[in-house]
Amino acid sequence: MLIVMDIHAGPEQIEAVCSEIRALGLSPHPMPGAQRTAIGITGNKSVVDAGRFEAMPGVMRVIHVTAPYKLVSREFHEADTVVPVGDVRIGTDRFTVMAGPCAVESAAQIDTVAARIKQGGGHILRGGAFKPRTSPYSFQGLAEEGLRLLAEAGRRHGLPVVTEAIDGESLDLVARYADMVQIGARNMQNFSLLRKAGRCGRPVLLKRGMAATLEELLMAAEYIVSEGNPNVVLCERGVRTFADHTRNTLDLSAVPFVQRTSHLPIIVDPSHGTGKRHKVTPLSCAAVAVGAHGLMVEVHPNPDTALSDGPQSIDPDQFDNLMKQVGAIARVVGRSLS
Amino acid sequence: MLIVMDIHAGPEQIEAVCSEIRALGLSPHPMPGAQRTAIGITGNKSVVDAGRFEAMPGVMRVIHVTAPYKLVSREFHEADTVVPVGDVRIGTDRFTVMAGPCAVESAAQIDTVAARIKQGGGHILRGGAFKPRTSPYSFQGLAEEGLRLLAEAGRRHGLPVVTEAIDGESLDLVARYADMVQIGARNMQNFSLLRKAGRCGRPVLLKRGMAATLEELLMAAEYIVSEGNPNVVLCERGVRTFADHTRNTLDLSAVPFVQRTSHLPIIVDPSHGTGKRHKVTPLSCAAVAVGAHGLMVEVHPNPDTALSDGPQSIDPDQFDNLMKQVGAIARVVGRSLS
Amino acid sequence: MLIVMDIHAGPEQIEAVCSEIRALGLSPHPMPGAQRTAIGITGNKSVVDAGRFEAMPGVMRVIHVTAPYKLVSREFHEADTVVPVGDVRIGTDRFTVMAGPCAVESAAQIDTVAARIKQGGGHILRGGAFKPRTSPYSFQGLAEEGLRLLAEAGRRHGLPVVTEAIDGESLDLVARYADMVQIGARNMQNFSLLRKAGRCGRPVLLKRGMAATLEELLMAAEYIVSEGNPNVVLCERGVRTFADHTRNTLDLSAVPFVQRTSHLPIIVDPSHGTGKRHKVTPLSCAAVAVGAHGLMVEVHPNPDTALSDGPQSIDPDQFDNLMKQVGAIARVVGRSLS
Amino acid sequence: MLIVMDIHAGPEQIEAVCSEIRALGLSPHPMPGAQRTAIGITGNKSVVDAGRFEAMPGVMRVIHVTAPYKLVSREFHEADTVVPVGDVRIGTDRFTVMAGPCAVESAAQIDTVAARIKQGGGHILRGGAFKPRTSPYSFQGLAEEGLRLLAEAGRRHGLPVVTEAIDGESLDLVARYADMVQIGARNMQNFSLLRKAGRCGRPVLLKRGMAATLEELLMAAEYIVSEGNPNVVLCERGVRTFADHTRNTLDLSAVPFVQRTSHLPIIVDPSHGTGKRHKVTPLSCAAVAVGAHGLMVEVHPNPDTALSDGPQSIDPDQFDNLMKQVGAIARVVGRSLS
Repeated sequence: MLIVMDIHAGPEQIEAVCSEIRALGLSPHPMPGAQRTAIGITGNKSVVDAGRFEAMPGVMRVIHVTAPYKLVSREFHEADTVVPVGDVRIGTDRFTVMAGPCAVESAAQIDTVAARIKQGGGHILRGGAFKPRTSPYSFQGLAEEGLRLLAEAGRRHGLPVVTEAIDGESLDLVARYADMVQIGARNMQNFSLLRKAGRCGRPVLLKRGMAATLEELLMAAEYIVSEGNPNVVLCERGVRTFADHTRNTLDLSAVPFVQRTSHLPIIVDPSHGTGKRHKVTPLSCAAVAVGAHGLMVEVHPNPDTALSDGPQSIDPDQFDNLMKQVGAIARVVGRSLS
Repeated sequence: MLIVMDIHAGPEQIEAVCSEIRALGLSPHPMPGAQRTAIGITGNKSVVDAGRFEAMPGVMRVIHVTAPYKLVSREFHEADTVVPVGDVRIGTDRFTVMAGPCAVESAAQIDTVAARIKQGGGHILRGGAFKPRTSPYSFQGLAEEGLRLLAEAGRRHGLPVVTEAIDGESLDLVARYADMVQIGARNMQNFSLLRKAGRCGRPVLLKRGMAATLEELLMAAEYIVSEGNPNVVLCERGVRTFADHTRNTLDLSAVPFVQRTSHLPIIVDPSHGTGKRHKVTPLSCAAVAVGAHGLMVEVHPNPDTALSDGPQSIDPDQFDNLMKQVGAIARVVGRSLS
Repeated sequence: MLIVMDIHAGPEQIEAVCSEIRALGLSPHPMPGAQRTAIGITGNKSVVDAGRFEAMPGVMRVIHVTAPYKLVSREFHEADTVVPVGDVRIGTDRFTVMAGPCAVESAAQIDTVAARIKQGGGHILRGGAFKPRTSPYSFQGLAEEGLRLLAEAGRRHGLPVVTEAIDGESLDLVARYADMVQIGARNMQNFSLLRKAGRCGRPVLLKRGMAATLEELLMAAEYIVSEGNPNVVLCERGVRTFADHTRNTLDLSAVPFVQRTSHLPIIVDPSHGTGKRHKVTPLSCAAVAVGAHGLMVEVHPNPDTALSDGPQSIDPDQFDNLMKQVGAIARVVGRSLS
Repeated sequence: MLIVMDIHAGPEQIEAVCSEIRALGLSPHPMPGAQRTAIGITGNKSVVDAGRFEAMPGVMRVIHVTAPYKLVSREFHEADTVVPVGDVRIGTDRFTVMAGPCAVESAAQIDTVAARIKQGGGHILRGGAFKPRTSPYSFQGLAEEGLRLLAEAGRRHGLPVVTEAIDGESLDLVARYADMVQIGARNMQNFSLLRKAGRCGRPVLLKRGMAATLEELLMAAEYIVSEGNPNVVLCERGVRTFADHTRNTLDLSAVPFVQRTSHLPIIVDPSHGTGKRHKVTPLSCAAVAVGAHGLMVEVHPNPDTALSDGPQSIDPDQFDNLMKQVGAIARVVGRSLS
C-alpha cells in the first residue's frame, strides 16, 4: 500500500502516519519528493484496510498496490488449471463448446437439441431448470423435473450437463443431477451461494456479473476456491454499458486479461453477451480467435417458440455452421474441437 | 407492443405478422406509412413475448409500449404507499433518517451509536450483522449475535431497527429480530430471496442494484409485492459508471422518476452512494432537496477503526450537523424531521 | 510514480528499473516487501511517462501518484477563484442563475424570456446561436443573427449573456457579442478550441463531457488556464450511463469533489442533465443543496413549440417557482440569490 | 412515431393529440387497447420532433420508430460502399491493415516503420502529426512537418497514408498531404469539423466516440455524406465503461450491427481499444474473425521510447506475427490480405 500525503502536509503529519503503520506491525518507507511525500508500506501479507489512513490529517489518498486475490492468481499458481466435467477437460488446447436451450421445456425439446448438439460436435449440454427472470410473471423453469430431463438427455447422447443454481436449495438439486453447476451473472456476488458452490463437490461455471470488474470476478472465484473447490471456469457474458444496439457489451479483452492474471480457464457466452441471434456466430468466431477456452451458446430446436430468450437462440442448422467456422479458426490459433 | 416492419417488407410478410398476432388472441393494427409499415397490437393484458415476432421475416424491430410492472405502478394504485416500521411511517411528509454503523461490532459500539442517533433526531437504527463482502477474507459480520445486539440497542433507545439479509437462512433470522428487512444492492435480482422477503411479514428496504435500471428496480419490488407484502421502500445508493472520483455515481434523478411512476416511497443512501465521508453531508442535503422520503447514512463512533466501510462513515458529531442541515432543507420542501 | 514489480522479479530486473529511473535524472526508492518489491520515484516535477517502465521485464504495473493538473489545482492555488461576467461574480456566496432558451429563435422570443428571467431574479441570460445537433437535418441555430439578438436582449434587460462556440470561427464571433463563452460537452476535448478559448479574453463556461472523468474536465480547464485565461467556470451537466430514465445521469457528487480539488467555481445544468422538464426543479434544488455555485436552466416562453430541446425546458412561471425554492435552500446552505 | 397515452387519459386528451398530429399534416392512428390508447403517426418523411407531444396532457411517452439517418442506411442504399484510398479499396473481401506509429517523430522513425509495414504486408501507413492530448503539457505532434514526413515515407514505400485532423486548419493541411483524413474519437461530434470533412475531397476515417451509440456514429457519418462525400470508413476503437482492466472496452458487436444497418465499411482499432500491447494481437484476431473490413494498429520501431502511447504500440516483429495470424483467420472467414 502507498499513502500519498498532501502537498502541505507537515513533518508531524507524516510521522503520525508512520506511527500508525508501525502500530500495525508493518514498516513505513517515507519518500520525500519534489512536491509531496509518499509513504510505502511493507510487511503486510494480506490487504491492509485503507480506511484507517484515508481519514488522517495530511493524507491525500491511499493506493492499493497488490491485487486482493491469492488462490486464483497466476502469481501464486503458475500452471493452467484444467477443469474436468464428466469426460471433458476445460482449459486445454481442446476448445470446449457448451450448447443447449435457455430453458428445458419438455423431454422432446431437450432430447432433440441434445441429439443435434452431439451430432454437431458440441461437448457439454446446457439447459436451465431454474430461471432467474426479471419479471415474476415470466416462465421460471421446470425446476427438478427440468433437471431430470436434462440429465437423461445428457446421458442418452453422451454429453455431460451444466445448469444454473439460483439459491441454496436449487444448488443441492443441481449438484445431484448435473456434472457442472452454473452460477449466473445476477448471483456473481451472492456470496453465500458462492460458498456453498465451493463445497458442492462439482465443478463450477461462474459468469461475470453485469457490472463486475474482472477483479471482482476473480474475487468471486476466490470465494469458491477458498472453500476447497479448485474447479472453477469463468465466463465472459457481456457487461452493461450505455451502448443500446446489444443487450450487453461483450468484453472480449477479458479473455487475455484473465489468462495473464489467473490460472483458471475462461469461456465466452455470445448469446447473452449480445442478445441477438445474428451476432452469435460472428462473436463466437471472435471468441475463439481471441483465445478463449470455450463457448456457451444457446441452441433451440425452434427458437421462435422458445419459452425464454428465443431472440438470442440459434437453431441446430445454424449451430452446425457455427461449429464449422469455430473449428477452422480454432486450428489457426492452436486449438481443436476434438 | 408495436412491430416495425422493414422498409422492403412485402404485403405477405405484413400479413404473416398480423396472423401471428391473431393466433395469440390479440388484435393487429397495421399502419402503412410513407416508408414502412408499423403494426400496433392491442388486447394484451400482460406483456407479450417479443421473441416470436423479432425473428419473423420482414420485421425490423419490436417496441414495448407499456411497462412490465403492475402492482408497484402508480397507474394501478394512485395513492402514496406509507410503510410502517415500528412506530415510524415512511412515505409521508415526515422525512425519515435511518442511521448506524455499517456493521455491528460489539454491544458497546452499537449502544453508543444508538444513543447518539436517538439524541441527534434519527428515526431508525441500522447495522449489518451479515455483510456481503467482495473478499472472502474480510470481516463478514457477527451474524445472529449481531442481530441480538442490534435489537437490544434499538429497544433500549426507542429506535426500530433495519438490517440486511443475504440468503434464505439469514432472512428468517433477520425477520425474527428486526423491524425491517434490507435486501442489498448485490441481491436486488436474487429472485428467490425477493420472493421470501415477500412472505416474511416484515417491511422491506430494497436497494437498487449497481447496474440496475429503475424498471428493473421496480420489477424487483414487484416480486416482493406479488407475494403479498405491500410494504416496500426503495433505496437509491448509486450506480456503477466510468466516473472514478466516487465509489458509485449517486443518481438523484431516480427520486422524481420513481415518485411519478410508482406509489412506493424512495430514500437515498449517500454513504454507499459516494463511498467518501466528506460527500455524505452535501449529498444528504441534495437528497432531501430533490424530494426523497428519507435517508440512510452510516454513523460510527470512531470511523477510523471501523471493521468495514470506515472511509464512508461519519461520526456522531458530524451526524448532528447533518441533521441540522437536512432538517432546515426539509422545511423548505414541505417536509419535517419530527 | 510507483512501479510495482512482479512477484517473481529478480534482483537484476529490479536494478534495471532503478537504472532507468536514474537515467531520467530521478531517484529510485526500492521497497522490498513480503511478497514483491515496489519502487518509488522521486525528483520528478512533471508527469513521467509510464510507457517506458510498463514494458520492462518484471514490471507488473505502474501507478501514478499525483494528478496531472497544476494551474487549476487547489494544492497550487488555495483561494477560491471568482469569475466576473459583466457585473456578476461567480464563485462567491451569491448563487448565480443562468437561464434562457436552448436556442435563440427570434427577437420576440429572446426578449420575452429575458424580461421574465430578469423579473424572476436570474443573473445571466443564456441562448444558443450555434447549436451542435446530432442530426444534420435539425435546426442549427441563427448564427451571428442569434448572437446579435441575444446581446440586445441582454443589454435591454440588464443581463450579461453566455452562449456556446463550436469552432474557431464561431468563437471569434461569440467573444465579440457575449460576456461569457460556453464550451459544450461535445467539445470538452476539442483541444484547439480550448486553446483558443484561453486566448479569447472572455470568461469561459466549460461543460463536462458526456464520458469525461473529473480529472479530464480539470485537464480541459488546464488547457484554457495555461493559455493565460484564469476565468473558467466548470459545469456538471450529466454523464452517459446505462440508466435510461433520464437522458444523462446528473452526477452531483462532482460538486464537492471539484470544490476540494480545484479553486474554480462549479455550476450545475439540470436541464441537459436530465432531459426532462419535471425533473428540472427538484434537481435544481438538489444542486444548490449540494453546494454548487450556480445553475444553468433552460427557460422558453412556450416550451412545446421550441425549435430544440423543448421537453427539457421550463416555462417562465415554472422558473419563478424554481427561483423561490432555490432561494430558500440557498439561505440554508449559506448562500443567497441577491 | 408512436404516442403512448396515460392509462387515465380521457377521450378529449386523445383527440387533442390527434388534432395536433393533423395540424402537422400527418395522420393519427389511435389504437384503443385493454389498458391504454396508443396513437401511431404516419405520413412523416422526416423525423417529427417529439417535444411538442411529450408535454401534452395525458401523454405518457413518445416512441421513435425509425432511425434518423438516411444516406448511410442500408435500407436506402443496399450495396456495400467500397472506399478507395490511393490504390487500396476498403470494404471488399480484401482485409485492409492500416499501421504505423501513434505520432510521427522523425524522418528516420517513420521511414523505418513504413519499410517494415510494407514488408509485413500492411496496406496503409498511419501516423499522427496533430495529436489531441489530454494534457496541454504532453507532446502535441510535429504538425505540418509531420505531415510532410509521413507523406514522403508513404510515397517511398508505396503506401497511401492516413492521419488525423483536429480542427479546420489542420484539416486543410491533412487533405493536402494525406490520402485519407482521420476524425478522432474526441471529435466525432465536432459537427463543424464533420461538415468540413464532407467537403475536403478525401476519404474519411471516422472513429467512434468514447461514449457514442452506434446511432450517433452513423449520424456523424451522415453529416459527412450529406455534404457530398460518400467515402466514409467507420472505426470501432472501444467505448468507456466501468471496466478498468483496459483503457476502453472494445465493442466488437459494433461490426455485425453496422454491417446490417449501414452500407459503409467498418474497421477496428485494437490499440486504442485496449491500450495494452499484449492485447493487440488477440483482439486483432477477434476483429478479423467477427467480420471487420480492416484493422488499424499502432506499430513503433521502439515502442518503449515512443513519445506517445508507447504502452499500446507493438514493434515490427510483433506486427509480422500479427499479420500471419490475421491472414490465416481472414482466409477462414472468406477474406484475404492480398
